[in-house]
Amino acid sequence: MISSREEVTAMILAQKVAKGIKWSEVADAIGLSNEWTTAACLGQMTFDKRQATIAGELFDLTDEAVAWLQIVPYKGSLPTAVPTDPLIYRWYEVVNVYGSTIKELIHEEFGDGIMSAIDFSMDIQREEDPNGDRVNVVLSGKFLPYKSF
Amino acid sequence: MISSREEVTAMILAQKVAKGIKWSEVADAIGLSNEWTTAACLGQMTFDKRQATIAGELFDLTDEAVAWLQIVPYKGSLPTAVPTDPLIYRWYEVVNVYGSTIKELIHEEFGDGIMSAIDFSMDIQREEDPNGDRVNVVLSGKFLPYKSF
Amino acid sequence: MISSREEVTAMILAQKVAKGIKWSEVADAIGLSNEWTTAACLGQMTFDKRQATIAGELFDLTDEAVAWLQIVPYKGSLPTAVPTDPLIYRWYEVVNVYGSTIKELIHEEFGDGIMSAIDFSMDIQREEDPNGDRVNVVLSGKFLPYKSF
Amino acid sequence: MISSREEVTAMILAQKVAKGIKWSEVADAIGLSNEWTTAACLGQMTFDKRQATIAGELFDLTDEAVAWLQIVPYKGSLPTAVPTDPLIYRWYEVVNVYGSTIKELIHEEFGDGIMSAIDFSMDIQREEDPNGDRVNVVLSGKFLPYKSF
Amino acid sequence: MISSREEVTAMILAQKVAKGIKWSEVADAIGLSNEWTTAACLGQMTFDKRQATIAGELFDLTDEAVAWLQIVPYKGSLPTAVPTDPLIYRWYEVVNVYGSTIKELIHEEFGDGIMSAIDFSMDIQREEDPNGDRVNVVLSGKFLPYKSF
Amino acid sequence: MISSREEVTAMILAQKVAKGIKWSEVADAIGLSNEWTTAACLGQMTFDKRQATIAGELFDLTDEAVAWLQIVPYKGSLPTAVPTDPLIYRWYEVVNVYGSTIKELIHEEFGDGIMSAIDFSMDIQREEDPNGDRVNVVLSGKFLPYKSF
Amino acid sequence: MISSREEVTAMILAQKVAKGIKWSEVADAIGLSNEWTTAACLGQMTFDKRQATIAGELFDLTDEAVAWLQIVPYKGSLPTAVPTDPLIYRWYEVVNVYGSTIKELIHEEFGDGIMSAIDFSMDIQREEDPNGDRVNVVLSGKFLPYKSF
Amino acid sequence: MISSREEVTAMILAQKVAKGIKWSEVADAIGLSNEWTTAACLGQMTFDKRQATIAGELFDLTDEAVAWLQIVPYKGSLPTAVPTDPLIYRWYEVVNVYGSTIKELIHEEFGDGIMSAIDFSMDIQREEDPNGDRVNVVLSGKFLPYKSF
Amino acid sequence: MISSREEVTAMILAQKVAKGIKWSEVADAIGLSNEWTTAACLGQMTFDKRQATIAGELFDLTDEAVAWLQIVPYKGSLPTAVPTDPLIYRWYEVVNVYGSTIKELIHEEFGDGIMSAIDFSMDIQREEDPNGDRVNVVLSGKFLPYKSF
Amino acid sequence: MISSREEVTAMILAQKVAKGIKWSEVADAIGLSNEWTTAACLGQMTFDKRQATIAGELFDLTDEAVAWLQIVPYKGSLPTAVPTDPLIYRWYEVVNVYGSTIKELIHEEFGDGIMSAIDFSMDIQREEDPNGDRVNVVLSGKFLPYKSF
Repeated sequence: MISSREEVTAMILAQKVAKGIKWSEVADAIGLSNEWTTAACLGQMTFDKRQATIAGELFDLTDEAVAWLQIVPYKGSLPTAVPTDPLIYRWYEVVNVYGSTIKELIHEEFGDGIMSAIDFSMDIQREEDPNGDRVNVVLSGKFLPYKSF
Repeated sequence: MISSREEVTAMILAQKVAKGIKWSEVADAIGLSNEWTTAACLGQMTFDKRQATIAGELFDLTDEAVAWLQIVPYKGSLPTAVPTDPLIYRWYEVVNVYGSTIKELIHEEFGDGIMSAIDFSMDIQREEDPNGDRVNVVLSGKFLPYKSF
Repeated sequence: MISSREEVTAMILAQKVAKGIKWSEVADAIGLSNEWTTAACLGQMTFDKRQATIAGELFDLTDEAVAWLQIVPYKGSLPTAVPTDPLIYRWYEVVNVYGSTIKELIHEEFGDGIMSAIDFSMDIQREEDPNGDRVNVVLSGKFLPYKSF
Repeated sequence: MISSREEVTAMILAQKVAKGIKWSEVADAIGLSNEWTTAACLGQMTFDKRQATIAGELFDLTDEAVAWLQIVPYKGSLPTAVPTDPLIYRWYEVVNVYGSTIKELIHEEFGDGIMSAIDFSMDIQREEDPNGDRVNVVLSGKFLPYKSF
Repeated sequence: MISSREEVTAMILAQKVAKGIKWSEVADAIGLSNEWTTAACLGQMTFDKRQATIAGELFDLTDEAVAWLQIVPYKGSLPTAVPTDPLIYRWYEVVNVYGSTIKELIHEEFGDGIMSAIDFSMDIQREEDPNGDRVNVVLSGKFLPYKSF
Repeated sequence: MISSREEVTAMILAQKVAKGIKWSEVADAIGLSNEWTTAACLGQMTFDKRQATIAGELFDLTDEAVAWLQIVPYKGSLPTAVPTDPLIYRWYEVVNVYGSTIKELIHEEFGDGIMSAIDFSMDIQREEDPNGDRVNVVLSGKFLPYKSF
Repeated sequence: MISSREEVTAMILAQKVAKGIKWSEVADAIGLSNEWTTAACLGQMTFDKRQATIAGELFDLTDEAVAWLQIVPYKGSLPTAVPTDPLIYRWYEVVNVYGSTIKELIHEEFGDGIMSAIDFSMDIQREEDPNGDRVNVVLSGKFLPYKSF
Repeated sequence: MISSREEVTAMILAQKVAKGIKWSEVADAIGLSNEWTTAACLGQMTFDKRQATIAGELFDLTDEAVAWLQIVPYKGSLPTAVPTDPLIYRWYEVVNVYGSTIKELIHEEFGDGIMSAIDFSMDIQREEDPNGDRVNVVLSGKFLPYKSF
Repeated sequence: MISSREEVTAMILAQKVAKGIKWSEVADAIGLSNEWTTAACLGQMTFDKRQATIAGELFDLTDEAVAWLQIVPYKGSLPTAVPTDPLIYRWYEVVNVYGSTIKELIHEEFGDGIMSAIDFSMDIQREEDPNGDRVNVVLSGKFLPYKSF
Repeated sequence: MISSREEVTAMILAQKVAKGIKWSEVADAIGLSNEWTTAACLGQMTFDKRQATIAGELFDLTDEAVAWLQIVPYKGSLPTAVPTDPLIYRWYEVVNVYGSTIKELIHEEFGDGIMSAIDFSMDIQREEDPNGDRVNVVLSGKFLPYKSF
């Protein structure tokens, strides 16, 4: 009996290492972006039946685990409020150092509101550079204005 | 006597509202991106003499304040570890929900290391969209590999 | 020189007590709901020029303060992550006790996504009741679905 | 031997996924609202004998688990003080952004006191809307006045 | 201009020390219990006009301060979540050590619900005792049952 | 092998539900108050041999568990510094809202010192009331004065 | 107008540096130990009239400040829960590393109860030692047993 | 396979209760103070081979557990930064209330530096007293001066 | 099935104690520094295939565990934000006490930027000293300048 | 009247910017290392009379400020437990990522004990490197062994 999505994520990670599967292979099999597919495998997004079935085959999951993949998870992938992992911390640092800047510039352009993290997509690409390759990330989120009521 | 950069940031914000200056005007005057210029005005980056002088004229700053703009600040623009402002929180949420995904995909592509938040740039653009305009943000950071030693 | 919206909120509160103004009077003068108007006066929403001018007259604010009311504020109205005020704590408790329930039922009805806190309105009403009057609150937020990408 | 209500909640969640039961079916079987029934299944409310027996049948629970459902639980359904799940966080944000507003308006209408979270009910409904359906939630709590003593 | 109740509390404390007033004298003048009166002076309860006027005379407060005493305050009298003051900490310790006991026994007697902290009174008395006098405190709170809905 | 008192508390809770034992029955069997007995069963107090043996019989404990009941436990019955359970939170709220009041009044009556939480007793009673029954709690703690040295 | 004891502590520290007074001189003038006298000057203990008058003369305090010294303070001398100052941290470390040991040994000798921090004294002495002088501290606290009730 | 010292501490505690061993008996068998021996058994100090072997015999430990006793542990014996156990909390309170005093007096006597918590010993004794026995603790730590460099 | 790197770290620690292996022996076998090798064994760095195979042989790891050693781990080796272990705390203290100094001096020499913790190495050596041997540590990190963009 | 060392640090920082003084100039004038001198100016170390007088002349300090420089400060130079400034955070990260490694290797070489942060020195140097200059830091701390007692 599985009683939480975290158990399914652990099964996927265990199988991924044991079988040497790549996230991009999972994404190809499912037919979606690497970013969304990985997030879903890591317990942050919800698969539909077809997607869950494919993931289940790739990772040798039981039917019950496949069912869990179709349940909306309790999201949040980090164990602490301030992440300790250096790669993830750099992103937290960007939010901390540039947060007030991002806020000012979006408000200057759009007025009061937010950049959605739901109607949102992310694309991570390698940019070759003679001084050392770069990670380029495009974040796209719908602007949602506050309205008076 | 000014004894911290926060005081200079407060002066800039006060003058910005009083005079109705836009960040993009400051950026144009200084000749750099909106993003970097705003971050510097908000106490996160260091101006050189020319840049500080221009900012000082725009915001009617004293010579002492202009000197402070050329001192490396103690960075971090958010008052709490988990930001309460909805716009900035959405970014924190992206790090929290997608953090493990970002980590997995960068490692799958580049191996162990990080995406630099120092050799880094950010570009925020409006993308027009009939379903509601979008905020598009490009983050570009050099990949820095961990090496054994 | 005013260097933060908090100072304007403090001026409004000081004048409100000194003059005995009611929030509903402010809302009537501005022509919007009590809820939105109060939130704006307390530094959580952004007034347009007309709204700010009316508020400025009611609370005897300087032109500079009126300008600040038109700047998007850093939102978040509570001094601690877990609020200590009993009235506000009861709302936090509702989120804590019923949070997983709300999540389950919205997902059961709508699928994966959120109830927007931006495209959102709130209406607070007294319901007379012989066993003691009740506070009835209607919260209305657009459902925003997560989509795969 | 079961030594905490959390174990029973985990059993219910495991069976719910394995059997594909909906919360509304549980509520119908018990004859109460979806909201209260779900909260009780998630370990926040106390079932009486009849209710517990029905839940036990639906979820194939042992007699001991059914007994636990009739014990008042230690309430609180969230793993962190500031919730990380985006749907639940939006509610926390409402409390944070609108908390001081809610407080001001209830006090303006009722005087000093609180809106009860115990003598309380909640109703979650879908409102169809051509711009995207909305989640409408009605919260009703008895006003409890502070009295001098 | 006074912009928060904390300022009024500070004025009261300053005058109390400067004039050597006792809380029991304030309570007698106002005609209520020591407990409620002190809580109100310390910014936790709301005075009506008559009560505020008497307090204003005793503590030489301005009209504006007297007006603030009639505004519902943001409650919470402790500077940290876990209090450091030894006397107050002992009460926190009672809640921590005996909290689960109190919960069990109230539920065993009354069922699911709470002991109200709003419809509540407190009485602190000295009990003479040859082994050292004791502080006896009677807390009385209405039981509020949870009901299904 | 049992390696912590928490395990014994879990055994007691499991048996209590399975057998339907009441805390008052345990207290009667042991011959002490409900309050102290419950606290001891919940891992906050230390039983002597006779008391532990009786508890062991009631809850079908092994000899080893009975030995653990006679060991002074690491006290503290709450999982978080600010409790999330509504019943226990109301007590925390009393300490937070009335804490400074309690401090002022005890000092006004007794001088500098504390109300002991060790030389302490608690009595919880139902008071019938036509407006709804009340929970009355008497706390009695020896006053311990600070002395200069 | 002085509205908190912290202001008086700040005055004492300012005068102590300006005049070059030693704590031991204050203790001699008052006729009590260095430890208690320093704690009282730092806002942790309560002076009686005679003691406060002497302190007032040594530190050139106003009558109002002298009155504040006779009011029981809100205790707690550290700005953070885990102290950052290396000297004070070493004491915190002793509590952290040896805390469970202290607990075990006091319970083995005395049974369940505590070592009082109220009926308590402390004596700090230099012990000359050829390998480097030592700080010897004697802590003496009355044992207070828990009793069943 | 044992993978942490905590597991060995748990084994020792389990055996100590099961066999009714006293810490002073362990200390006698090993030939060191009660304080050091208990700290070592509780996972805060490192046994040498002879000491570990004796402990292993007393507590029926496996060879592997005996090996773990000779490995330097990750120290820190308390589950929370502010301890909840009343006996240990009183020590934390001493550090909090008297911390600034201890700092002032050691600096007045020795200059800048710390009292070592490494070159350190502790002795806990019962002092008989007609008003109630006292716990007397002598702490002795080498003074380590800061030097300029 | 192994589902996290922590499990592999635990296996390595268990085998290290059971077999009495030294970190320097592992480093020699792998042909890298003690520092990097230990960090990798403790779950902070990523082994390549050859390195993982050698480690696997030394610690008797399964093929699956050896595969995990080649996966980039979630880094961060400390259980709490402020470490409780005295040796590690001293390092935290260095960062806390000297942090602003390190920042000032690096900026004075290099301008705005950071000392990399990725392009980084560390060397720990014993320095013999008649007054007591010293631990000498050389940290070397590339300076990464912030640039305007 | 100056009532805390923080005020003196603020004066020094204000003068340093206003006059354009470098830390190395201060160190040269005083005749000690840059590291120690900067730490002392930033309120972490204690100047003797001669050193304080020189600093006072360089920074135009009053006699009272010069007296404060000779008082042992409350140490700790960071505003939050986890530092937000990127340069300082990298050091915190080193402690977090390599902390367990540092601990293991020092214990392997020296046995149980610590590397002193008091009998300690630090030297920061630029190392020229064609791939980008490096910051090299040598930390030297006396090893202090734990001894049994």
